Amino acid sequence: MLVNAYAAPSVGEPLVPTTIERRAVGTNDVLIAIQYAGVCHSDIHTVNGDWGPQPFPVVPGHEIVGTVVEAGTGVTRHRVGDRVGVGCMVGSCGSCANCLAGEEQHCRTGMVPTYAGTDRDGSTTQGGYSTHVVVDADYVLSVPQSLDPAAAAPLLCAGITTYAPLRRWGAGPGKRVAVVGLGGLGHMAVKIAHALGAEVTVLSQSLKKQEDGLRLGADHYYATSDPETFSLLAGRFDLIVNTVSADLDIDAYLGLLTLDGTLANVGAAPGPFTVSGFLLGSGRRNLTGSMIGGIALTQEMLDFCAEHRIGSEIEVISADQVNEAYARVLASDVRYRFVIDTATLA
Amino acid sequence: MLVNAYAAPSVGEPLVPTTIERRAVGTNDVLIAIQYAGVCHSDIHTVNGDWGPQPFPVVPGHEIVGTVVEAGTGVTRHRVGDRVGVGCMVGSCGSCANCLAGEEQHCRTGMVPTYAGTDRDGSTTQGGYSTHVVVDADYVLSVPQSLDPAAAAPLLCAGITTYAPLRRWGAGPGKRVAVVGLGGLGHMAVKIAHALGAEVTVLSQSLKKQEDGLRLGADHYYATSDPETFSLLAGRFDLIVNTVSADLDIDAYLGLLTLDGTLANVGAAPGPFTVSGFLLGSGRRNLTGSMIGGIALTQEMLDFCAEHRIGSEIEVISADQVNEAYARVLASDVRYRFVIDTATLA
Repeated sequence: MLVNAYAAPSVGEPLVPTTIERRAVGTNDVLIAIQYAGVCHSDIHTVNGDWGPQPFPVVPGHEIVGTVVEAGTGVTRHRVGDRVGVGCMVGSCGSCANCLAGEEQHCRTGMVPTYAGTDRDGSTTQGGYSTHVVVDADYVLSVPQSLDPAAAAPLLCAGITTYAPLRRWGAGPGKRVAVVGLGGLGHMAVKIAHALGAEVTVLSQSLKKQEDGLRLGADHYYATSDPETFSLLAGRFDLIVNTVSADLDIDAYLGLLTLDGTLANVGAAPGPFTVSGFLLGSGRRNLTGSMIGGIALTQEMLDFCAEHRIGSEIEVISADQVNEAYARVLASDVRYRFVIDTATLA
Repeated sequence: MLVNAYAAPSVGEPLVPTTIERRAVGTNDVLIAIQYAGVCHSDIHTVNGDWGPQPFPVVPGHEIVGTVVEAGTGVTRHRVGDRVGVGCMVGSCGSCANCLAGEEQHCRTGMVPTYAGTDRDGSTTQGGYSTHVVVDADYVLSVPQSLDPAAAAPLLCAGITTYAPLRRWGAGPGKRVAVVGLGGLGHMAVKIAHALGAEVTVLSQSLKKQEDGLRLGADHYYATSDPETFSLLAGRFDLIVNTVSADLDIDAYLGLLTLDGTLANVGAAPGPFTVSGFLLGSGRRNLTGSMIGGIALTQEMLDFCAEHRIGSEIEVISADQVNEAYARVLASDVRYRFVIDTATLA
């Protein structure tokens, strides 16, 4: 099946309209008519070669919402007409200890990324900047009808990426959570942490987005460019979720944790970080990371967001605006996520 | 009360016999006749000035076992004749959130160290290389009669330092625990982790102490000087307790952790460590630290060690051998802890 898509022809090149082949619907596959695809910073890192060589042409997009239009004979999870979503992975071995524990993203033989990955049949996966996609039904989520489908698309990556550490480290009533950075990931972290019942503080470079942060659910907002912030908030937080991709003075943020507090990195900053052993010991602080979430947790997150009427703050664009959107993401000029209306690809 | 002691007169100088004043026994104090005092690497760091200026003369020693010979009228925890112990702290505010939670070592106004600290009356605390000490009874532990008093002394620092992270991070049946370094701390970690029911692996620079390690309770023993160790054991451990004070290639050890595994630093290495953000996220690994333990947990540890007949492996020395012992500790020539018989001070 040939379908319309937007692809990066080679490293760093602007995306162009193209057609790609989607595989025939297998026994356990569904064919999804895509409605919306979010623009994630990872898409830009990938096509710009920041993360190494890629199998160009690459069709990015791993924040996908659409409708099932065909289902294989073995599919029981989803039916034709269902609203569904696809996130960052479309496969895993299914049999290793991590897969069996519902942590498919940590599959010991490697999960299959939604684009620029190698599918189990050896073909290269292509993402959601496209009209249709064929995906193993086990990696397809149900998107509750009460969610706006465009605003739900970013939940499939930005939502689960922030939900996972918030849940794991107990964000909830009586807990003080700080979110570093108010961008695509950060604004989701604020909404979700607030809905979980935590006291939420945004730590942003400046106070430029303070009004937004408070509207989205933050209780407090501080500028990290002000050195007083770090003395004022010393020992304050149970959990800090760092959503910033840039290098960070980890020790300064560790100092903001209370006893047994955790600093969880979800930004794409690969480090290396420089960390004081003294700070880790003297406050029994934890430094950790998190990477999306398993399928079951992603479904839990979608259901949680539906219950709490949480979507992403989005700007819907047509497919031919994607290169301009990339430039604006790089300039931090988006509040807070671009979502491609894939009807404009038809 | 004037008592005999061994003190470092100034930074880096050999310890010499001296006398020091102990305060009168207050309402909530006990006077302890010291029997044994362990020689901890921290003692050497302190008198050598590795941790900054100190209020010389300094009487080191925070692994103290002795007998109560006098008790204040308000004391109910201990009675004259009881065998007791004192570890790294002899006071804290008692009213902050951490003290109230039994985490006195993390007292928000600072715990009072057993030596070279400022006591609540403004005097400088002096440690266990001495015949007697007066301590607030709330910071004095009960040492079960079934423990050998000399072998029990190092439990007060080396024991609790390793017991705390092993308990906190769930060392027990079905868990794989690695202990980095087989010294004063490491050999206690091996014994305790084994008694907790974990599968224990020692990671030591060489195989020199392999026979000891296996005898003390380790199931496996690997040399970290062999690069194959790191590929062979990749993703193996639920918990790694790092007891080494020297700089460590943290990323190499993070790679040995399974999903959600924890690397807990208890060595005195102040860092800074260099850590890959990618490694933290891709395996959801935790890097953390730990610092002794609260009074209640220390008592739990002593009772656990009595139940499992665990003591330190020791070499008992007379007080006048302490400078030689320091040199041997620095040369890693001790299996595994020197303990001063304070009868030799009388």
